[in-house]
Amino acid sequence: MPGKARRTPIVGRFTRQEVALAARNSGMPLEALRYELTPAGLHYLLIHFDIPAADAATWTLELRGLFSQPGAIGLAALRQMPATTVRVTMECAGNGRGQISPRYPSVPWLEEGVSTAEWTGVSLPVLLQKAKLEESAREVVFYGADRGIDRGLEHAFARSLALEEALREDVLVAYAMNGEPLAPQHGAPLRLVVPGWYGMASVKWLERIEAIDRAFDGVQQSLSYHFRAAAGERGVPCTRMRVNCLMAPPGMPDFYSRRRVLGAGRVEIIGRAWSGAPPVRRVELSVDGEWSDAALEAAPAPHAWQRWRALWDASAGRHELRCRATDASGAAQPLEPPWDATGFGNNAAQTVEVMVR
Amino acid sequence: MPGKARRTPIVGRFTRQEVALAARNSGMPLEALRYELTPAGLHYLLIHFDIPAADAATWTLELRGLFSQPGAIGLAALRQMPATTVRVTMECAGNGRGQISPRYPSVPWLEEGVSTAEWTGVSLPVLLQKAKLEESAREVVFYGADRGIDRGLEHAFARSLALEEALREDVLVAYAMNGEPLAPQHGAPLRLVVPGWYGMASVKWLERIEAIDRAFDGVQQSLSYHFRAAAGERGVPCTRMRVNCLMAPPGMPDFYSRRRVLGAGRVEIIGRAWSGAPPVRRVELSVDGEWSDAALEAAPAPHAWQRWRALWDASAGRHELRCRATDASGAAQPLEPPWDATGFGNNAAQTVEVMVR
Repeated sequence: MPGKARRTPIVGRFTRQEVALAARNSGMPLEALRYELTPAGLHYLLIHFDIPAADAATWTLELRGLFSQPGAIGLAALRQMPATTVRVTMECAGNGRGQISPRYPSVPWLEEGVSTAEWTGVSLPVLLQKAKLEESAREVVFYGADRGIDRGLEHAFARSLALEEALREDVLVAYAMNGEPLAPQHGAPLRLVVPGWYGMASVKWLERIEAIDRAFDGVQQSLSYHFRAAAGERGVPCTRMRVNCLMAPPGMPDFYSRRRVLGAGRVEIIGRAWSGAPPVRRVELSVDGEWSDAALEAAPAPHAWQRWRALWDASAGRHELRCRATDASGAAQPLEPPWDATGFGNNAAQTVEVMVR
Repeated sequence: MPGKARRTPIVGRFTRQEVALAARNSGMPLEALRYELTPAGLHYLLIHFDIPAADAATWTLELRGLFSQPGAIGLAALRQMPATTVRVTMECAGNGRGQISPRYPSVPWLEEGVSTAEWTGVSLPVLLQKAKLEESAREVVFYGADRGIDRGLEHAFARSLALEEALREDVLVAYAMNGEPLAPQHGAPLRLVVPGWYGMASVKWLERIEAIDRAFDGVQQSLSYHFRAAAGERGVPCTRMRVNCLMAPPGMPDFYSRRRVLGAGRVEIIGRAWSGAPPVRRVELSVDGEWSDAALEAAPAPHAWQRWRALWDASAGRHELRCRATDASGAAQPLEPPWDATGFGNNAAQTVEVMVR
């Protein structure tokens, strides 16, 4: 089935379809790196199909498959269970795709597909225990209400987690974001949140959880979201976020080119760093190829990004700023985009060109 | 000065700069046409420069120039003045630019740069009277805190209104959107809202109002936001929104191509129609070139879009759906994009291709 309805890679300028996807799937403007918690409406979006019409009053979450006490639970009942809140930096697995060449036809993220929010809901293992997950269960599948066609196959968006991930206490069935009920575009009224993983794991508009005794073979699990050197390969699944960091571009922009202009003198560069293997241990800033360590703050929560800053004595002329992070596993960002046929996991060091006057 | 730092028009595929602008300036996904009031976070955004860092606690709005009692007013004082709430459909003047060829290098909106919100604040004439606007005033200028470079010129975003517009009771200095304090990307803590006009008039991050005795010649007033057959012409200013309508594309999408697929049978097509010369009097739906009238609802507020719907007996095969509106002035949407050198005011009838199975 991989290879079915395969899209032709693109070189150079962007297609109308890519632009339509960029307009729908908003990125976080990089100046919003100033906020520890991304303000409502600035959190990045990746909506595969359409935002479904959902009625919170009648919404139920069905638990079925390998449970001794399967059933359905409504939103009011979920809200009466013990609540857990987690702060999570979430990044789209395709972030940076627009910088890879040739690139896979999909959302052409440049670097803005990342944000941080505080999610509140019921810890997933609590729900699984309540329905009495059976011994034979091997994976737990999460079905969204969003339906469409991808790679020629009609399906509802669905993803699975192996048991060891599904039983993590910080994996949530969430009904609130930053203290407010979920907005339609963030999965209202109910979504999964899997801290540390790329965003595709955090299934939105969650309407069904199914426990199964085999590996889930849905489109978004077994075909999409794999690292592959060439289309058609089996590949390696995308799971935890690779180490990454961004800076808020200093100075002010030119409207169209987005080139940055600032005055000479001392400038504070600030940014955020994150990884699916936290914490980030080191962030470096390069000015015209000379690297030096930035000051890195501790994470406010296990899966939240870490603030970093560096001072730069900017002199007149054109300069190239870059930043790169190294995480607890020792993994460091590459300087060039790692090759991937479908454009996943591009964590190459960001480059910002500035003109100092 | 027009013509200075002029950008070269683009034909065909889209540039990286256009994609970066599309990722920052989010559009409203068209399925959100189902909501009379666009939910928080789905309202379209046009941010010329960066979202400025703003502190609501210390923010002041300065009134200067031709006032007998100029001065500054803080947010707390504004909130204690009589509040007005208006429901406003707002559209970017550049909406549809991405469909014009050759197109001006700017935000490549296809059709998603429109939304509806309820704004609360102080009626502008109340503020102008409080500061005692002088007889000699001819225009009122609104300065935002957002600063950058456009057409080679550094400036803070600023726009003016002639007195007759500035004295409209429904023009607001707004501090709330849909009952919540303004989000950073919508102008926090204070913005102008000019119902009926394209969005550029509703200056965000409002920090200064200046009354002057001449025509304002700022970059965003005298150079940008003009209808022009050729770059370099003086042109005609963009003011009120042209008549326009959109449908929520029926059925479900293919992820990449966004092509719509639906089953044969009776389908309800729903959409919204609006105009800066309200109300809209007629909406028509075309199926494969055959036009018929849609059912059009009354506007819930003078400057809010109007819901329309039509039934369609969909038969198997490919079909092309289009919709067009006619407003109270008798203006109707054209079938082809009206030519404009900088891509403003494209209100051509929307086209949606569907495959019925």
